[in-house]
Amino acid sequence: MPGSGTGGFGSGYARAMSRRSLHTPAPDVASLRARINRAKAAAAKADTDALLIAPGSDLRYLIGQAGGSFERLTTLVVPAGDAAPALVLPRLEAPGYADVPTDELGVEMLTWVDGEDPYRLVGERLGGAGRIAVSDTMVALHVLALRDTLGDTEQALAGPILRELRMRKDAAEIAALRTAGSAIDRVHARMGEWLRPGRTEADVGADITAAIVEEGHVHADFVIVGSGPNGASPHHDVSDRVIERGDVVVVDIGGPIPEGYNSDSTRTYAVGQPRDADVADTYAVLQEAQRAAVTAVRPGASAQDIDAAARVPITEAGFGEYFIHRTGHGIGLDVHEEPYIMGGNDLALEEGMAFSVEPGIYQDGRWGARIEDIVVVTADGVEALNNRPHELVVLDQ
Amino acid sequence: MPGSGTGGFGSGYARAMSRRSLHTPAPDVASLRARINRAKAAAAKADTDALLIAPGSDLRYLIGQAGGSFERLTTLVVPAGDAAPALVLPRLEAPGYADVPTDELGVEMLTWVDGEDPYRLVGERLGGAGRIAVSDTMVALHVLALRDTLGDTEQALAGPILRELRMRKDAAEIAALRTAGSAIDRVHARMGEWLRPGRTEADVGADITAAIVEEGHVHADFVIVGSGPNGASPHHDVSDRVIERGDVVVVDIGGPIPEGYNSDSTRTYAVGQPRDADVADTYAVLQEAQRAAVTAVRPGASAQDIDAAARVPITEAGFGEYFIHRTGHGIGLDVHEEPYIMGGNDLALEEGMAFSVEPGIYQDGRWGARIEDIVVVTADGVEALNNRPHELVVLDQ
Repeated sequence: MPGSGTGGFGSGYARAMSRRSLHTPAPDVASLRARINRAKAAAAKADTDALLIAPGSDLRYLIGQAGGSFERLTTLVVPAGDAAPALVLPRLEAPGYADVPTDELGVEMLTWVDGEDPYRLVGERLGGAGRIAVSDTMVALHVLALRDTLGDTEQALAGPILRELRMRKDAAEIAALRTAGSAIDRVHARMGEWLRPGRTEADVGADITAAIVEEGHVHADFVIVGSGPNGASPHHDVSDRVIERGDVVVVDIGGPIPEGYNSDSTRTYAVGQPRDADVADTYAVLQEAQRAAVTAVRPGASAQDIDAAARVPITEAGFGEYFIHRTGHGIGLDVHEEPYIMGGNDLALEEGMAFSVEPGIYQDGRWGARIEDIVVVTADGVEALNNRPHELVVLDQ
Repeated sequence: MPGSGTGGFGSGYARAMSRRSLHTPAPDVASLRARINRAKAAAAKADTDALLIAPGSDLRYLIGQAGGSFERLTTLVVPAGDAAPALVLPRLEAPGYADVPTDELGVEMLTWVDGEDPYRLVGERLGGAGRIAVSDTMVALHVLALRDTLGDTEQALAGPILRELRMRKDAAEIAALRTAGSAIDRVHARMGEWLRPGRTEADVGADITAAIVEEGHVHADFVIVGSGPNGASPHHDVSDRVIERGDVVVVDIGGPIPEGYNSDSTRTYAVGQPRDADVADTYAVLQEAQRAAVTAVRPGASAQDIDAAARVPITEAGFGEYFIHRTGHGIGLDVHEEPYIMGGNDLALEEGMAFSVEPGIYQDGRWGARIEDIVVVTADGVEALNNRPHELVVLDQ
């Protein structure tokens, strides 16, 4: 392909699909304008003259388009003051932004061509800013070139500024997460079609990947099929291991829907009756822990309260050392974003925050189990966006 | 999913497949050791105390594993001197590196857990280095945290250092590119199965995506189906446009094979006899230009010589203004890497360099055409890795 590199930003085909998705409901102009104005205010509050937003979810959050160039600079310059935002981008990339309502948003398009210096273009736009904040995902190629071009301008991260906006979802965002949750629930509901003895995790993963798209996602972002001992490794994805009768299998799957918001749900299955005698009792503890954590979610509760609510019953049952990761993570345009549900995070939960509740118990070398729902903090409690049964689902009896 | 963010580094499922691919032939230990030693020497030559390699193709080039963590730091520290390289990574991610021959490579594993400061860990390892070079793809989240932790240590880019290694392919890399070229040729050979009037570009793109995997790729990295006027936009990917009889269609496709090396080939098709009367003569000029550029490839020729060889016949025919991009790009573990085949690049080609030769002529609003082969510089000339016919292929006559 002739243009910018596909670089570090994932599948061009996925990008193509995401671009097509702009033809499906994107955030309305009023929402995008409000987000840009909140970003300007947050930048000012952080004594930052401008935000430099790189392609990715930050850019999609602010203008409804994630972009995707890597080796050629694309960045949205969002000044803290009254000045208009400007999207600096290679002219070759401009067609990809045709659906962005730049006029209504008051975003100027500053295109450049090979041979021109895009960093100087940004510098002229900034007019000697004292402090800028760049997207956490901006690559070193651009971060260091901007540093060299902007001289004394201090560089900070935009993530801490934007997370304050992005972790508080509006009604449209929650509706999109609800749609994503239902879509992945439909995939889990079909697990019996694929999860059978004699098939490899990779075979099952390929079928799940297709179903994730069939049920309304743009693509599968992750497909974890951890059978038997592989289920005891939270970061296992798929392997050529052949699934055997008696295996306990952790299936953790998700991806973005056309609106860009992600699903992420884990259920644990047994292929026939579990081989290990301790599965039933241990799983009951996990199910109680996950239920307790979800029940603890309400405005004013802290992120670490939710983590503790999941950890207490597991620890009391003597499995504390087998619960080796945080209880959850925020979710939205990114699969992992603020708020993180973990010890030490005293963030007070607010209405509109969305995150996973996913305790796990991992019996190293034998089997593992995890239950994961995405939940949203409501005015007076919690709404679960995943609603498949939480019991251990025994398939192929 | 419980672990590190899927962040900016693409599909977790693709990562899963790539990780599985480690069970297929990975570079032998001797090759990896030689690459690490060349990287050390190149760092020393650049007066750089150490390279900090981020997850991605640079990491895969040096240790055979691309990694994939985003929010948690993973980096390979490669000192310029005799000190051993160290892979700094979250303990949760360690299982994903189980197939890396760290002992044979003399790479120390330095794992960290949440609550520890990975940047300090890197700093201690560097012991007050004066100058480091970070991967071009390292994200700002880590670049700025390293800057703050390392104080006076100067940061530069590792790309210019590593490209000197990566653009000169060894025999195993060329063999992998040859395999990838044959695989994408088999997909083009099947185009008649999918490219028919009445289907949308997206329908065709979905079928091509499946075939790319069927023919031996890990996944489809990009699928461009530019029909009729869409073919005149080099950056078009797919749309809901319904393909009509008489359309000229640009199909530009590729992806990585399990070894990690990419295919990238473009052919231009006509669905029935072309609607526009100027297609035959214009395409003949393009075909001559592409042939002339490939023929010009030999050791000692410069990148810009090849670009000029493609541009001259197109310009002489009066289509110069319609050839709106560089003639080609290097390819390997990245779809786009050095050497770039463009005006102003006086790099002398050497045996083992691999790149695309892909001139195009774009009739804005009407139709476009592009022909792309991957070629490798041999001891005395050139080898084409794509070998489908270069004529305009008329389907569905």
